Amino acid sequence: MHRHGDAVVKAVIGLDVGNTRITAAIVRASGEVLAMIRRPTDASGGANACYRQIEDMLGQLISTASERSIPISCVGVGFGGPVDYEGGRIMRSHHVSGWEDFPLRQLLREKFGLPVVLDNDANAGALGELLFGAAKRHRNVLYVNIGTGIGGAIISDGKLVRGENNFAGEIGHIIVVRDGPICGCGKLGCLEAVASGTGIGRRATELIQLGSIKTSLPKRSVTSKEVFEAALHGDELAMVVVDEAVEHLAHGLGIAITLLNPGIVIIGGGLSEAPEKLLLEPLRERVSKYVLDIALKGLEIVNAKLRYDAGVLGAAALAILEGGVNCD
Amino acid sequence: MHRHGDAVVKAVIGLDVGNTRITAAIVRASGEVLAMIRRPTDASGGANACYRQIEDMLGQLISTASERSIPISCVGVGFGGPVDYEGGRIMRSHHVSGWEDFPLRQLLREKFGLPVVLDNDANAGALGELLFGAAKRHRNVLYVNIGTGIGGAIISDGKLVRGENNFAGEIGHIIVVRDGPICGCGKLGCLEAVASGTGIGRRATELIQLGSIKTSLPKRSVTSKEVFEAALHGDELAMVVVDEAVEHLAHGLGIAITLLNPGIVIIGGGLSEAPEKLLLEPLRERVSKYVLDIALKGLEIVNAKLRYDAGVLGAAALAILEGGVNCD
Repeated sequence: MHRHGDAVVKAVIGLDVGNTRITAAIVRASGEVLAMIRRPTDASGGANACYRQIEDMLGQLISTASERSIPISCVGVGFGGPVDYEGGRIMRSHHVSGWEDFPLRQLLREKFGLPVVLDNDANAGALGELLFGAAKRHRNVLYVNIGTGIGGAIISDGKLVRGENNFAGEIGHIIVVRDGPICGCGKLGCLEAVASGTGIGRRATELIQLGSIKTSLPKRSVTSKEVFEAALHGDELAMVVVDEAVEHLAHGLGIAITLLNPGIVIIGGGLSEAPEKLLLEPLRERVSKYVLDIALKGLEIVNAKLRYDAGVLGAAALAILEGGVNCD
Repeated sequence: MHRHGDAVVKAVIGLDVGNTRITAAIVRASGEVLAMIRRPTDASGGANACYRQIEDMLGQLISTASERSIPISCVGVGFGGPVDYEGGRIMRSHHVSGWEDFPLRQLLREKFGLPVVLDNDANAGALGELLFGAAKRHRNVLYVNIGTGIGGAIISDGKLVRGENNFAGEIGHIIVVRDGPICGCGKLGCLEAVASGTGIGRRATELIQLGSIKTSLPKRSVTSKEVFEAALHGDELAMVVVDEAVEHLAHGLGIAITLLNPGIVIIGGGLSEAPEKLLLEPLRERVSKYVLDIALKGLEIVNAKLRYDAGVLGAAALAILEGGVNCD
């Protein structure tokens, strides 16, 4: 569809199912968003409540499309948790109960009579950047999403590297500190444990309790946002914490770059909104310590281009790129 | 060609250009080796001397094929160093001088009038295992070659992950010990520096000099082979060194498995000949500490199936799988 241009308006629906909010949008092949709905995730109601939200939101958008005579060719769904891509099923959510082995693709297909593609939000995010964002004109991409957790996706020669069970790209769980702090996954020293928003907040909180480094930060649990804010104003403890996190990120990215030789590394997620001079700039500089020189040549490390609507654009890209003939 | 069976004997030539020896063979699509020549690499003569050896060896095999009426459809070349795959040029050798930017594919094409495919030996080795060895029936493969150095290759959905400049797969240069021992590549703490044959020999030699652990090993530079031999007989120092190396390998493999979610990990190279109970068995056990649980499910970690003729079979697989229409 995107190959034939937009002479006739053809569009897909992108649906992003996150832990805190669900977003759905009608998106043209050009990336133009024609309509968007966003709602807080009804996490307390479990998967069934979320599913009802999804049905309702998609129903609304399909009505809108019909009223405006926009033909919808496919629905792409990016989900915030592991997905059985082949089977079109959610495997689980780490935040909302009841998603175990949930046949989301089949249910949506039957309900709306449209082809549906379902994947995790990291894969969708990477395809979004490939089609609409920072990775245009690239074939080999490492996409890293740094927020409360750290997710990732790999594109090799224009195609997602999925691995055996669609779990490839889990850069947040490569171990950079042997026997380091415990991670949500149960292992010790994962990149996510030491360099995610959660990890940064935890580390700062630890050091504040310890009391040996000067700080203006309050003596309670602090967030990574507070840490970056304080670091920006020269707070000593906050600068130490950010410095550690950047070193861990440089190490983790360096490992992935050495293994994958991407042409571009794209950093998305909440942390990519931190001031560039605190995160992206020192990261670019320090990553060379951890990358085989030949893999560094010509490499770009940039922030994601898609921001507020990254989730739905990623889901839309999934529909366009992986929806196959059904979406054409 | 391999898809059409062997009703008519069709074959390729596989050429493996290593640091210590050059091997060439006529190989059928079934993997049967019909003729093979092996010579020590004339390293002192530089790239030009090696090239003359290669021409001579290929000339002999082509005569043999002609005498026996075996049609040769393609020549696959696996080279022990970085290769510009698209351009068909050697980039350099770390052991033999004069290979910089050497147009090997073009020279061989012009000399013999046959299609030629050129790649590094790790990529060729992985394709060899995919077509003829341990990775048959697999689509997602991590191939690791542990010898004097550590090389690797990644197969995703049946295709090599090459990355932007054909440098993907360099698992030997992911950094597992931050600020660790210096590696041949110039970085500190690469997997190759601490877990290759060279790294193991160096570490044992260091500990022998230090003199604080009981050992039967002589007070001179020892090889990894001597270390494994001594460990097998219960030597305390040798067991410590092997134990450290296995832990580093478990960490390095664990990282790559978490990132790539392969269905099978294949260990080739000289070290894969070490007794299984010293290397492969503890590796299988300890890798779980470093792998996201979901990526471990169903994962096989095995020794390479191809041994003595792995190099030429890999080069032959390269010709068959990547030679394209020219080789059909």
